[in-house]
Amino acid sequence: MQIARVVGTVVSTQKHRKFEGAKLLLVQPLNLDDTPRGNTLLAVDGVGAGIHEKVLVVLEGRAAGEALGRKAAPVDAAIIGIIDTVDVRESL
Amino acid sequence: MQIARVVGTVVSTQKHRKFEGAKLLLVQPLNLDDTPRGNTLLAVDGVGAGIHEKVLVVLEGRAAGEALGRKAAPVDAAIIGIIDTVDVRESL
Amino acid sequence: MQIARVVGTVVSTQKHRKFEGAKLLLVQPLNLDDTPRGNTLLAVDGVGAGIHEKVLVVLEGRAAGEALGRKAAPVDAAIIGIIDTVDVRESL
Amino acid sequence: MQIARVVGTVVSTQKHRKFEGAKLLLVQPLNLDDTPRGNTLLAVDGVGAGIHEKVLVVLEGRAAGEALGRKAAPVDAAIIGIIDTVDVRESL
Amino acid sequence: MQIARVVGTVVSTQKHRKFEGAKLLLVQPLNLDDTPRGNTLLAVDGVGAGIHEKVLVVLEGRAAGEALGRKAAPVDAAIIGIIDTVDVRESL
Repeated sequence: MQIARVVGTVVSTQKHRKFEGAKLLLVQPLNLDDTPRGNTLLAVDGVGAGIHEKVLVVLEGRAAGEALGRKAAPVDAAIIGIIDTVDVRESL
Repeated sequence: MQIARVVGTVVSTQKHRKFEGAKLLLVQPLNLDDTPRGNTLLAVDGVGAGIHEKVLVVLEGRAAGEALGRKAAPVDAAIIGIIDTVDVRESL
Repeated sequence: MQIARVVGTVVSTQKHRKFEGAKLLLVQPLNLDDTPRGNTLLAVDGVGAGIHEKVLVVLEGRAAGEALGRKAAPVDAAIIGIIDTVDVRESL
Repeated sequence: MQIARVVGTVVSTQKHRKFEGAKLLLVQPLNLDDTPRGNTLLAVDGVGAGIHEKVLVVLEGRAAGEALGRKAAPVDAAIIGIIDTVDVRESL
Repeated sequence: MQIARVVGTVVSTQKHRKFEGAKLLLVQPLNLDDTPRGNTLLAVDGVGAGIHEKVLVVLEGRAAGEALGRKAAPVDAAIIGIIDTVDVRESL
């Protein structure tokens, strides 16, 4: 799983029927010091996340479909938690 | 999921039987400013997308098979929505 | 899916029993101008492809197993079509 | 599978219900000489690992869900073993 | 699938129960000229491979679990064949 921040939303009116009702958020993966890591991506929201919140993102189809509560949903990324704290005990 | 633009088509006459009838489009992943990100790839069309349209692409086999409506289809990428708007509220 | 060219073959006598009889080809992924893109990889042949042919390669385990017609086969890449034409309408 | 070291923990109170009770650890993938390789990631703990331990990490949704003992869990990485020794016989 | 060479072993006493008895080998992916390509990784052995042998590695969870003969095993890479010859007919 990755740590990311919600940075935007995407609207898609014409979409696959199994995707209806899913909220789609734009997330930016983060490094441990909260700087951006790599590119933004789109994830379905499984926990009711909002703009600016730091979230836990799962990047895999089966897992993302489970997060959405729809096994047959055509999705590959999902927000599965809102992060309270990250505690780094050791830096290599 | 990724944001991409449809930039071409591919014709394959001799193909796997479970792939018959699927429309195959060439898509270019995009950055948030609509510049190209990485390489083009081939995705099956699950929503009736056309050339130049900005689309939502899922990159994973199970999910792509679901988008095509064929669980056992040998596919790994699919177009699952046509994007109306992308709203970036916060840039990190 | 990726566009690739068949560039060689691999022989493996001692292999997993569910892999018996599968033809294994060495393929080179291509850019749209037919120059090589990244590294070569090994794919099982699901359509009867030959050396030098331009093919459609699926890169994912479930999908590749389907292409081979064996759901439980331990494979992660397969050739699922022979490409006739690639038509690029728009370059970003 | 990858070799990694446990370097921290993450707390997420508001999370997907199938994720309840799972311990989430921050791990740093390692090279063979124990230097860091790439970015840290989050993995669910399937073996009771602690801070600083060298562990075996599986990076794939189905496998990670199995490690957690919950087939339908929305996870994509898991710690499946604690490493005693790595024996490199040949360096290429 | 990738071509790799077995370069070492890993011992993990405390591991996930579904992982018991699996032999874990350290493999180095290779280029066509047998030079190393990228980083080493850990794969379960599905064919009885030994140190220095050139092997066929599958990189995907479902496929690797099949190679191990345990559908629910938490693994993401497996050795599925020992390579006799690689025949490159055409270099792009």
